[in-house]
Amino acid sequence: MTTSAAYYTGNKKFSLEQVTVSPPGPGQVQVDVSYCGICGTDLHIYLGHMDKRVGDHRVIGHEMSGKIAAVGEGVTGLKPGQNIVVRPLDHCGDCPACNAGHAHICHKLKFIGVDSDGAFQQKWNVPAHTIHVLPDGLSLEHAALIEPLAVACHDVRRGRVAKGEDVLVIGGGPIGMLIAQVARHAGGNVTVSEINENRIAFAEKLGLAALNPKSVDVGPAIHSATGGKGADVVFEVSGSQPGAELMTAAAATRGRIVMVAIHATKQSVDLFQFFWRELEMIGARVYESQDYDAAMALLAEGVIDAKAMITDIGTLENIGSSFEALTQNPASMKTLIKIEA
Amino acid sequence: MTTSAAYYTGNKKFSLEQVTVSPPGPGQVQVDVSYCGICGTDLHIYLGHMDKRVGDHRVIGHEMSGKIAAVGEGVTGLKPGQNIVVRPLDHCGDCPACNAGHAHICHKLKFIGVDSDGAFQQKWNVPAHTIHVLPDGLSLEHAALIEPLAVACHDVRRGRVAKGEDVLVIGGGPIGMLIAQVARHAGGNVTVSEINENRIAFAEKLGLAALNPKSVDVGPAIHSATGGKGADVVFEVSGSQPGAELMTAAAATRGRIVMVAIHATKQSVDLFQFFWRELEMIGARVYESQDYDAAMALLAEGVIDAKAMITDIGTLENIGSSFEALTQNPASMKTLIKIEA
Ligand SMILES: [Zn+2]
Ligand SMILES: [Zn+2]
Ligand SMILES: [Zn+2]
Ligand SMILES: [Zn+2]
Repeated sequence: MTTSAAYYTGNKKFSLEQVTVSPPGPGQVQVDVSYCGICGTDLHIYLGHMDKRVGDHRVIGHEMSGKIAAVGEGVTGLKPGQNIVVRPLDHCGDCPACNAGHAHICHKLKFIGVDSDGAFQQKWNVPAHTIHVLPDGLSLEHAALIEPLAVACHDVRRGRVAKGEDVLVIGGGPIGMLIAQVARHAGGNVTVSEINENRIAFAEKLGLAALNPKSVDVGPAIHSATGGKGADVVFEVSGSQPGAELMTAAAATRGRIVMVAIHATKQSVDLFQFFWRELEMIGARVYESQDYDAAMALLAEGVIDAKAMITDIGTLENIGSSFEALTQNPASMKTLIKIEA
Repeated sequence: MTTSAAYYTGNKKFSLEQVTVSPPGPGQVQVDVSYCGICGTDLHIYLGHMDKRVGDHRVIGHEMSGKIAAVGEGVTGLKPGQNIVVRPLDHCGDCPACNAGHAHICHKLKFIGVDSDGAFQQKWNVPAHTIHVLPDGLSLEHAALIEPLAVACHDVRRGRVAKGEDVLVIGGGPIGMLIAQVARHAGGNVTVSEINENRIAFAEKLGLAALNPKSVDVGPAIHSATGGKGADVVFEVSGSQPGAELMTAAAATRGRIVMVAIHATKQSVDLFQFFWRELEMIGARVYESQDYDAAMALLAEGVIDAKAMITDIGTLENIGSSFEALTQNPASMKTLIKIEA
């Protein structure tokens, strides 16, 4: 029996192919993929920015949900029919990061769906250690948000957001909006800084305060809104030079800046403020197992407005047009591809 | 009775004046100053870089030791004759930083010896809360190192240096050398990066490993010396762009970078590394009371090579020539001015 797989084949092209998937090998689980969201990383790949890493014949996609179809030899505690998500990290097990207990940032980390084939396909074999079983009552559609939500849970955990703290999220894309909701649930008073008016409206729809740096000087605005204190925690999610400036300008004395964004170029940073106000900057990348658990719990509890976050659902057959639409629609937040047959 | 005070009066000038010091007011302590070291900040002032802040008639100096001469009304627990040092911080008591328990980085912090008269004078009235009584057996000469050593203790504490960790100190001036010794005492395997060969030799004299970035690519050297791991803790004490580059290049995954230096201009910083390797950057400024206690204990225990650190001792009468010599002698580490009559 063959199933469908969408291969990225170079600059803005996908090829839908019928493939024969082998049964799961020892330690593997075969998954029937249900939904898979389009990540910022997937968009980068689509636009040809990561060809050197992914090549020209790669199934991408990693923000998925699905059902176990079969389990390979030696896999225990999992069985066909279970609703699951995959934590798409494959670590080496023997580098300085792995040895120090930080396998999620292994020096030789393989990101499944980038460095090996991902979830924009119907049947997918993955290592059993990547599987998280969903709690009852969580829909497979909403569960496709767990991967990006786990990023947000990791970021908020790294930032140690505590009840009553003032929080600024710089950049209101999908990750920024998820961070904002998780930080609010942790007790933070959250403001989102975002230049896109559609996203400002979206933040307000979620009940979040939002400022547009095009019309407000956000740093001073945060200080005056907090009695001269500033933001206890700043999430830099914009990846921009103005974001790198705002992060130090808005932070409180002893404030924590969580570096979530991928800054492709070096930025000009006001290191003096780190000294003068004893700021902290904390890098945050992907997630650990406990962040997946937290994400599943928050989604099951209804803390995250999954319905609002999922703005579009496309099909595997027309995956290219869903990607194309995302590059052009500033009002969309998260697009899922429905994969299940 | 009049006593001597050296006033900084503008660009490279001091005026030695005979002054009449009033008795200590309520809550004040009068100190007979014994020794006062010349700090990098004092040198900056001497060179005219801080005239806007200090004016043109200011007694500077804050790295001091002395004896209590008299105590003012309401001062308890202190008495004339005690050997002491002054923690030269005067906080407002009611700003967001003070309210959060971070009085040492008060938003309106007055640094005694910069914002008000300091210790390059024989009799000095200070708030009683700034006094730390010296342990027995600690000489007043060596005690003049306590202020900069407290900076180093604060920096190492902020960096959470633990036994067996690999530590890189970027910049081998007096503060860098003190940090290196405190970090080594905390169990760190310390390397100093320094471009001045005199200071390299000084580090080696202290038994510290030292690398010169002019002849070695320090980032890769640290990684290869640590089995590909990198430095667990990096102290950026250079205040330079090459230092800002080395700090991310040398750090291990999840490494901590302690920002000790005063970067007068914005620097180009590789923020990507913060994300990718979950680096942390931690600002560190001055000290808290416990850092003074730690510094006094380390000095009394002989952990710090005070004899080596103090390379020159000048006099109050010739304070100008001690400053002038410091601007020209790359081999000197810490110069003290002997103040006691
Ligand atoms: Zn993603
Ligand atoms: Zn590894
Ligand atoms: Zn000093
Ligand atoms: Zn204050």
